[in-house]
Amino acid sequence: MSRQSPGAPHIAFLSRSASLAYFRPLMAEAMPHAEISVWPEPRCLEAEIAVCWNPPPDVYARMPRLRLIHSIAAGVDNLLEGRRDPGVPVCRVVDPGLARGMIEYVRWSVLYFHRHFDRMAAQQRERAWQRLPLAAASACRVGVMGLGELGGVVARALRDDGYDVGGWSRSARQIDGIRTWHGEGGLAPFLARTDVLVCLLPLTDATRGILGARTLAGLPEGAALVHCGRGEHLVSADLIAALSGGRLRGAVLDVFPTEPLPADDPLWTCPGVVVTPHMASMAASAEVVRQVAGNIQRLRDGLPLRNTVDLARGY
Amino acid sequence: MSRQSPGAPHIAFLSRSASLAYFRPLMAEAMPHAEISVWPEPRCLEAEIAVCWNPPPDVYARMPRLRLIHSIAAGVDNLLEGRRDPGVPVCRVVDPGLARGMIEYVRWSVLYFHRHFDRMAAQQRERAWQRLPLAAASACRVGVMGLGELGGVVARALRDDGYDVGGWSRSARQIDGIRTWHGEGGLAPFLARTDVLVCLLPLTDATRGILGARTLAGLPEGAALVHCGRGEHLVSADLIAALSGGRLRGAVLDVFPTEPLPADDPLWTCPGVVVTPHMASMAASAEVVRQVAGNIQRLRDGLPLRNTVDLARGY
Repeated sequence: MSRQSPGAPHIAFLSRSASLAYFRPLMAEAMPHAEISVWPEPRCLEAEIAVCWNPPPDVYARMPRLRLIHSIAAGVDNLLEGRRDPGVPVCRVVDPGLARGMIEYVRWSVLYFHRHFDRMAAQQRERAWQRLPLAAASACRVGVMGLGELGGVVARALRDDGYDVGGWSRSARQIDGIRTWHGEGGLAPFLARTDVLVCLLPLTDATRGILGARTLAGLPEGAALVHCGRGEHLVSADLIAALSGGRLRGAVLDVFPTEPLPADDPLWTCPGVVVTPHMASMAASAEVVRQVAGNIQRLRDGLPLRNTVDLARGY
Repeated sequence: MSRQSPGAPHIAFLSRSASLAYFRPLMAEAMPHAEISVWPEPRCLEAEIAVCWNPPPDVYARMPRLRLIHSIAAGVDNLLEGRRDPGVPVCRVVDPGLARGMIEYVRWSVLYFHRHFDRMAAQQRERAWQRLPLAAASACRVGVMGLGELGGVVARALRDDGYDVGGWSRSARQIDGIRTWHGEGGLAPFLARTDVLVCLLPLTDATRGILGARTLAGLPEGAALVHCGRGEHLVSADLIAALSGGRLRGAVLDVFPTEPLPADDPLWTCPGVVVTPHMASMAASAEVVRQVAGNIQRLRDGLPLRNTVDLARGY
């Protein structure tokens, strides 16, 4: 027997890679009459609303009452698998704060290398005290791969911080104060002038595995990687080889081919690697709840939903 | 017998706390005929020019040919001890890049706490994958102690990054978009609303030891400290007690009561503490050499020196 009031929605938060339990009190406050479940609670399968991030495989097929799939983020590529009923709409969260979060993450990561915080951490472990010469930001060549909505904003922010910013994208892009390259032919010259490589590419067949041996070998000796694109861009073994051989200085990684990163993955302990759990940018929890609650209300009122995903384009 | 050409200057780089050897090639390029020594080379004592950062005690008394003492930084409080001949002028380096370096250091440190990079590092050691909710910068209350030239610039930069910035100083200051307190009476309310405390105070009798038990106890549970003021502000034992007891979350420390930080100092290994070797801000090496070489040439030409220190005021 269900606890829910007649007609009150049942909302399930579904993720196999992270507990979404922190949404429960926020959602309960926004919709006091709703029933709320969090995976792996079995009654999730009774819900009409699936709020998802990396949902368990085939979960939709086991949810007979499903009426709406809602992402907690802008990306939906992680939650379309197993979706069968084309009558169930898919919505995403559109939050202007997403770009700000990404700028913060990339800014921290670039400063981590530019201002030698990685070397200082190594010194601290040895109780060693040695100042290193301070280089101006303008002497640090940052290269941003992917100049779309997010990549373009991040590249401009780094330019405004004083860095010498270059950019690379599949098709030609122009951004004031940033030297850009594009396409297959532009990759080598772009990499050759890049001290800190920032990946913000979208995932396509052309970019899958792009952070592999060939790209990494194109960077100058001692370059560093900041990866905030998609896990499937990265060939972990090639990165580990480049770091272990000393050719690359370090990497800050937020996304991984398998998430959560398995406990036995060598990246956890690879010297020079900072692992973060896909946290570079996400919509503020309060904003997620506001948009999800709004769409649930619209669904019940028979109104058009906001931020629905065009499934022919995939975003 | 000296290697120097007749009349060519002999320049000694003097520091007991860090090797200044990285200046040698830059100085040699700027003044090809100069003789250059780096402490602890004994012939340093024959030099006419002392370029200093924490010079060895009483070194000036052993330099009979000394004609100029030049700091490599804006601060000179570390190099006036033991100076006896009032006829030997003291100059400092004035570099507009100093504020930019400090902004970078403080920005990295505030992001370290605001964006949970400290907690992610602890997770990485445990191979644990758990996203934490993302808080907007506006929900992070940063408090800047010291609103002078450097503190004011840093407070405004953090405000522009979106943080909720408060400020405290000895005498009243007003900065757009920043709530300020001042004096003894303003300290408690300022501390009570501060999640990340940034110390950029000058060192005076009133501020010595200000980062001690009473101030730290005035911060909210779980607050963090970023210390870029002077080492003598900090009461290390009180900070360690606050961290060990779990009342404070962590600290990024760039300055220490004794520098270099002694190898047996408990701060090196205190959980939650990041130690950096007084590197938050320094003049770019090339700029230091340019200004030192310029003053050496002026001294030889009998012209007025630039950026001399008014020793009555001490800065």
